[in-house]
Amino acid sequence: MIEKGLLIVLSGPSGVGKGTVRKEIFSQEDTRFEYSISMTTRLPREGEVDGVDYFFKSREEFESLIEQGKLLEYAEFVGNYYGTPEDYVRQTINNGKDVFLEIEVEGAKQIRDKFPEGLFIFLAPPSLSELQNRITTRGTETEELILNRMTTARKEIEMMDLYDYVVENDKVENATEKIKSIVQAEHCRIERVKQRYQKMLEVD
Amino acid sequence: MIEKGLLIVLSGPSGVGKGTVRKEIFSQEDTRFEYSISMTTRLPREGEVDGVDYFFKSREEFESLIEQGKLLEYAEFVGNYYGTPEDYVRQTINNGKDVFLEIEVEGAKQIRDKFPEGLFIFLAPPSLSELQNRITTRGTETEELILNRMTTARKEIEMMDLYDYVVENDKVENATEKIKSIVQAEHCRIERVKQRYQKMLEVD
Repeated sequence: MIEKGLLIVLSGPSGVGKGTVRKEIFSQEDTRFEYSISMTTRLPREGEVDGVDYFFKSREEFESLIEQGKLLEYAEFVGNYYGTPEDYVRQTINNGKDVFLEIEVEGAKQIRDKFPEGLFIFLAPPSLSELQNRITTRGTETEELILNRMTTARKEIEMMDLYDYVVENDKVENATEKIKSIVQAEHCRIERVKQRYQKMLEVD
Repeated sequence: MIEKGLLIVLSGPSGVGKGTVRKEIFSQEDTRFEYSISMTTRLPREGEVDGVDYFFKSREEFESLIEQGKLLEYAEFVGNYYGTPEDYVRQTINNGKDVFLEIEVEGAKQIRDKFPEGLFIFLAPPSLSELQNRITTRGTETEELILNRMTTARKEIEMMDLYDYVVENDKVENATEKIKSIVQAEHCRIERVKQRYQKMLEVD
């Protein structure tokens, strides 16, 4: 029997650096995570491959999957649906692979409801002023938008309780190392390995 | 307020390599664990320093501490007591340092009763036959003694359920890395860091 993989959900307030951390994780050679492929109703761009970049679906297909409860989370954005297909995640995990998903706080909350056995990691800023710096230095936002974002960030940090772990993103390398440690540690938890050793006592 | 340290208890069957793993951990420069100093009634050997190698106590003092419940665990061995003083462990942890303790399975069980919030890591052999190899190649044991040890090892592996994590000691470097990952992950658990972020929301 194959030991099941983990669903690793990385989330945190907008501007904290989720995307950068995710890219760093997947650029490292010893990373063995599968990246969770999203489903969308938007049209494929040039070079995008179905089942690799996204699962491309029609609006009817997507809405039918919503009705059947086949999405771990979904949202509508600029007229298109985006979501995480449950079947793909469960199949990959059942094959013993860890699935990694980087997502906004609202999406993570939806997943927690449908997949409570996932591993939920909150990426936190070193401080609120540092988060404000990061949002501001993007340079594209108006003052009002920045204030809005900070209000949202506060609310999101207050939702930290829904997560299993909190990783401070002081430096990308530190955050990446901690996330990989957390996954390695989870694979050593007694609940996960007990069966293997019970077998050992029977067989050996 | 300083965040409390962890009490890390490494145990596992005799012959599995606990001592080797402990030495490897403490030989690494980035290790920040304090080694738990044992208390004993045996006389100091030349060069041994009280409070560094051991806390040296008279038999009366030791027995008085046992009566007061001031030892996390203790055992008598060749006419002398050996034990883990609770005050030292609690003080070190309250100063924000992690205390590392390598101990036999029976001692770990005593500690679990008195200090359930500790982090209990079971070092397991890759297989029972591999454990038998390791015991045999020490070369000093009779066949009967080896059989006895294997029976004990089986019983000890069955007690795995009392631990939080299981680390397979296939190679010392792998086991060491996993133990350090587990400690790092535990420091990121929501229960441990929540307060820090609640403060951040108040102050910032």
